[in-house]
Amino acid sequence: MAVGLPDTPTLEPVEGLRLAAVRAGIRRPDRADLLLIEVARGGSAAAVFTRNAFRAAPVVVAERHLAAAAPRYLLVNAGNANAGTGERGVEDALACCRAVAERGGCAAQEVLPFSTGVIGERLPVGKVTAALDAAFIALDAGGWAQAARAIMTTDTVPKGASRRLRLADGEVTITGIAKGAGMIRPDMATMLAFVATDAVLDPGAAREALGRAVARSFNRITVDGDTSTNDACVLLATGDSGVPAAPGGAVADDFAAALESLCRELAQAIVRDGEGATKFITVAVEQAASEAEALAVARCVAESPLVKTAAFASDPNWGRILAAVGRAPVPGLDIGRVELWLGDVRVAAEGALDPGYTEAAGAAAVRPPELTYRIVLGRGRARAELWTCDLSYDYVRINAEYRS
Amino acid sequence: MAVGLPDTPTLEPVEGLRLAAVRAGIRRPDRADLLLIEVARGGSAAAVFTRNAFRAAPVVVAERHLAAAAPRYLLVNAGNANAGTGERGVEDALACCRAVAERGGCAAQEVLPFSTGVIGERLPVGKVTAALDAAFIALDAGGWAQAARAIMTTDTVPKGASRRLRLADGEVTITGIAKGAGMIRPDMATMLAFVATDAVLDPGAAREALGRAVARSFNRITVDGDTSTNDACVLLATGDSGVPAAPGGAVADDFAAALESLCRELAQAIVRDGEGATKFITVAVEQAASEAEALAVARCVAESPLVKTAAFASDPNWGRILAAVGRAPVPGLDIGRVELWLGDVRVAAEGALDPGYTEAAGAAAVRPPELTYRIVLGRGRARAELWTCDLSYDYVRINAEYRS
Repeated sequence: MAVGLPDTPTLEPVEGLRLAAVRAGIRRPDRADLLLIEVARGGSAAAVFTRNAFRAAPVVVAERHLAAAAPRYLLVNAGNANAGTGERGVEDALACCRAVAERGGCAAQEVLPFSTGVIGERLPVGKVTAALDAAFIALDAGGWAQAARAIMTTDTVPKGASRRLRLADGEVTITGIAKGAGMIRPDMATMLAFVATDAVLDPGAAREALGRAVARSFNRITVDGDTSTNDACVLLATGDSGVPAAPGGAVADDFAAALESLCRELAQAIVRDGEGATKFITVAVEQAASEAEALAVARCVAESPLVKTAAFASDPNWGRILAAVGRAPVPGLDIGRVELWLGDVRVAAEGALDPGYTEAAGAAAVRPPELTYRIVLGRGRARAELWTCDLSYDYVRINAEYRS
Repeated sequence: MAVGLPDTPTLEPVEGLRLAAVRAGIRRPDRADLLLIEVARGGSAAAVFTRNAFRAAPVVVAERHLAAAAPRYLLVNAGNANAGTGERGVEDALACCRAVAERGGCAAQEVLPFSTGVIGERLPVGKVTAALDAAFIALDAGGWAQAARAIMTTDTVPKGASRRLRLADGEVTITGIAKGAGMIRPDMATMLAFVATDAVLDPGAAREALGRAVARSFNRITVDGDTSTNDACVLLATGDSGVPAAPGGAVADDFAAALESLCRELAQAIVRDGEGATKFITVAVEQAASEAEALAVARCVAESPLVKTAAFASDPNWGRILAAVGRAPVPGLDIGRVELWLGDVRVAAEGALDPGYTEAAGAAAVRPPELTYRIVLGRGRARAELWTCDLSYDYVRINAEYRS
């Protein structure tokens, strides 16, 4: 079902980092569902978490631990979100951290827990800890592909990307993995994206670099408008290349651009594999008075069930797009100045059909699996893009059948 | 498909008002699709229209005409929304008004046009005017049931309701009809609700009464979160009963209550027949700091595709409901104080599962076609209810197949 994604991404190892994916049998016995990531001493980390007030227990614990110490281990499970589990959920997450710390020879605060899966059931701590010995044995710098697979829930393909780039003092690698595929409307970062680099970055610079990259990648996608309780995106910098990514304190432009590009690729991969997706849609809003205004309009269009079902039907239903633009919270929007383009075809201008528009041209523009809706507001110079997918029978099937 | 609605509502005539439903062949030849309503001289009217910036031509014309004169005729067509048609759309709506005015012996400004159906195609004015002679002949005080049927689009049953009540000076009738069934998230009033009374109301009191009633009825429903371009709700007061509904200027409490109750019944009927609906869901938010806050939380829950697909599956998926509560724009919301009830079953309290909750009790609570999700915020004394339906395969089918 995934739109324009390879079955298996090619992922470069990152010096100073090892991964292991093992079977813990949390929800299904036939797949790896537990991921352990080990970071060499001396590395640094930054993370962004969901803004949903209903935060899962591991999010609470991970944020607390990250504030106290540089992480040595990340423990990630699929199949159970450990969300809506109250104080016992926090105890369960802490118990897992302690079990990792014992085996890894570090403090429990140096372990960050992450969970994804069913909301409202207790985490089977015994199953998790029973799989840890095997995980420690399996740790391997080449474990990225299996790691991407171990964190999947309703995803149909694993998602990851790598960048290698030359900075002033040498070459560095950035590699990341992420998962979707529903409850996707990140308001900080999406559930479970892990990005690592062997560049040297202090925690402050890592936070700055991650914040900038996430704002224009994970925070610009929506599958269903539902912000997850477990969203988290982590940047790990091992420093093992010895190459500083923020010489003099400021993050190098090259590094920031590569990180943003990688995060965008991962974020778009989540949308391309959105639940039931058959179309990958770019909503581009131009000539807005501000970037916030452009985003608000893009979000109304990208989250409209009517626009999304029309995309599923390959229907150039421009009226629904303009109706979604019209209900955006933009005071004084003059629909008479709005232009709408489906790909390269101008459909509407001045609140009405373009005289040169033909239904055949519109139908051809929305037939491919990758579409662009371009909305020109005529109010200013700001612009923004958002990425989303269509709403298909399979979205309903997946969410009526899957207990998330 | 409609949840808990009769095939044909019983509708009381309103003195001073006649209706006719005829076939104009606007989109389908086999059904009445044109409605003419005649109001006796001396009546008054009030209306509320969509807040969508992308307003349909008839909305623009109707608002302008209503500001200039008391209406004698309302002309309503299904099959074509005359939206996204620019200046030519306004000309087309005006041409229809002139054609009615000629036959009715009034000014064009005394005619209000309304349209529903496909967006972006020109209104076939010739077909409309060709059917007008037949419509004038068919005008009848008993025409309400056919009228309710003539304005349907993806609705599966006609929607209407009547109230008779005794005021200080005598008995009056209120009758109304409405239509849905998609692009329903009214931000003023839903597309095409017409309510009439034989009570005496001056235009100011009619506006006040309608505004109050709509705020807690049509503006409290959502099918898909998509605000229509053509929303309009009209209150017609013929005064033929001679009984004042606003003696001394203020709308009588009895009358206001009956009008609100009728509007709520019509609004709920739209949800009960929402596109693809198999469940009618009341989202009740209590102990909020303000009514606006209660509504914001209710809206997040009611518009969540994950909550709606779970309802379709009769899945007591309380995690999705709390996740939707958690992303509501309520600063400082403490999820640890939130309670969630499915019907009479308390599911969650203090951010975790109620110890007394069982999955069997939850499943039983969400099995019936009519559900209540009750969310207790523990922040104050305000409350609000919103009504919505589930998200089913049929919603996708209808909107992938129907060109609105």
